[in-house]
Amino acid sequence: MIGRSGGGEAPAFVFVRPQLGVNIGAAARGMKNFGIGRMRLVSPPENWCGTDAVARASGAADVLDGAVVCDSLEDAVSGSHFVYATTVRQRGLWKPVLSPREAMRDAAARVGVGQAVSVLFGPERTGLCNDEIVLANAVVTVPTSPAFRSMNLAHCATLIAYEWHIGRGVPRVDAEVTETASIAARCALAMHMITDLEACGYFDVPEDVEAKRLYLKNMLIRLDLTEAEVKTMHRIRKTLRGKTPGGSES
Amino acid sequence: MIGRSGGGEAPAFVFVRPQLGVNIGAAARGMKNFGIGRMRLVSPPENWCGTDAVARASGAADVLDGAVVCDSLEDAVSGSHFVYATTVRQRGLWKPVLSPREAMRDAAARVGVGQAVSVLFGPERTGLCNDEIVLANAVVTVPTSPAFRSMNLAHCATLIAYEWHIGRGVPRVDAEVTETASIAARCALAMHMITDLEACGYFDVPEDVEAKRLYLKNMLIRLDLTEAEVKTMHRIRKTLRGKTPGGSES
Repeated sequence: MIGRSGGGEAPAFVFVRPQLGVNIGAAARGMKNFGIGRMRLVSPPENWCGTDAVARASGAADVLDGAVVCDSLEDAVSGSHFVYATTVRQRGLWKPVLSPREAMRDAAARVGVGQAVSVLFGPERTGLCNDEIVLANAVVTVPTSPAFRSMNLAHCATLIAYEWHIGRGVPRVDAEVTETASIAARCALAMHMITDLEACGYFDVPEDVEAKRLYLKNMLIRLDLTEAEVKTMHRIRKTLRGKTPGGSES
Repeated sequence: MIGRSGGGEAPAFVFVRPQLGVNIGAAARGMKNFGIGRMRLVSPPENWCGTDAVARASGAADVLDGAVVCDSLEDAVSGSHFVYATTVRQRGLWKPVLSPREAMRDAAARVGVGQAVSVLFGPERTGLCNDEIVLANAVVTVPTSPAFRSMNLAHCATLIAYEWHIGRGVPRVDAEVTETASIAARCALAMHMITDLEACGYFDVPEDVEAKRLYLKNMLIRLDLTEAEVKTMHRIRKTLRGKTPGGSES
């Protein structure tokens, strides 16, 4: 969805199962205030771009006009090299946990070397679920008051956009250019690995299957693999299974 | 209004001639998210605390309940030692112009020595007028994109509240404790993987063997694996080879 040509651009903000069009509109306004124009929507409500939403967007209706509705979260982030998931709390999946400031400085550095990055925002009531967080490389948690953690969706998006704007231009310390694998390539690796392991009897205890799958998927997507390394992992997988010893995969 | 006894407290947020109750409600939510509970209102609309506003405040209705409606801006800030006025642009009145970050660090320092501070927010459409800005000691301008400066009132209040919270030296978001694998464990993984791959014919081109070994070792040691993930990688390795399907390794 976000092609390699998207490198060098501001992050895409991906709203996953948002419940209220007005929040999407308000988020568009906050995004545009800080130079973020790319909005992706996964399963938005039917009326997400109604008059209420447009009114709340105020002068940022162009962000709504340009928003792309994606079939799935995988689709929305498939072209990204690095994905940040906003969450209120840890969900038992290991990821680096960053503050908005740390995350957007990191994003600026990545964008500076041509990577495409996305930030995920979950539904108002529940936030992102584990199956969604697993697609991210890092978690961003806004350091709210412990007394009241529940932020409005548009407030959260605006804060992250603000930190992006502030954090731009921070020079990257480590300027080594590597071809970081896209999320799509990592998802495919996880899928193939799980399929192969399944065929080999890895998931032998029925009650653990889902947890094990999630764990594997999280690990393989989180690890900072380059494109070449993803190919190597496929080669390892096939070699160990005895499918194409030492051969290359297509 | 805010007496000297208010020293040591978080800033009071003063909304001057706000137009919409829903924005007051949304601002209350953003304030409470970042530990700011004192709201002052100068000439709010009659229905400022209607059901819409309370709904938008979500869990922060207590901030609305505690809001003080003041007869004038002078009254609202009379007990403050230092007042920050949020404005989009310069108005020809010379004041120090601070970013939200600078302003809230300054506020934290002042509060730390017992001063009472207030932040002023103007009406949605026009912002603060000169007669109001003149009552402030410093101006705060949010560094928005030049392409779209007009922020939602509640977004602006939330941003300032966020910077207040951050500027107080809030501890970092707790990172979940993970047991990063030792280098020894990663080396052992690399060694076992290479041995297995060798047995499966991975290194079929003799002149590449050393380069391939080095590449694999580099990858497996560089990846940020936890101890549990190293074990998972061993399990994957053994499962794919058909040695101990799904079993644990010693």
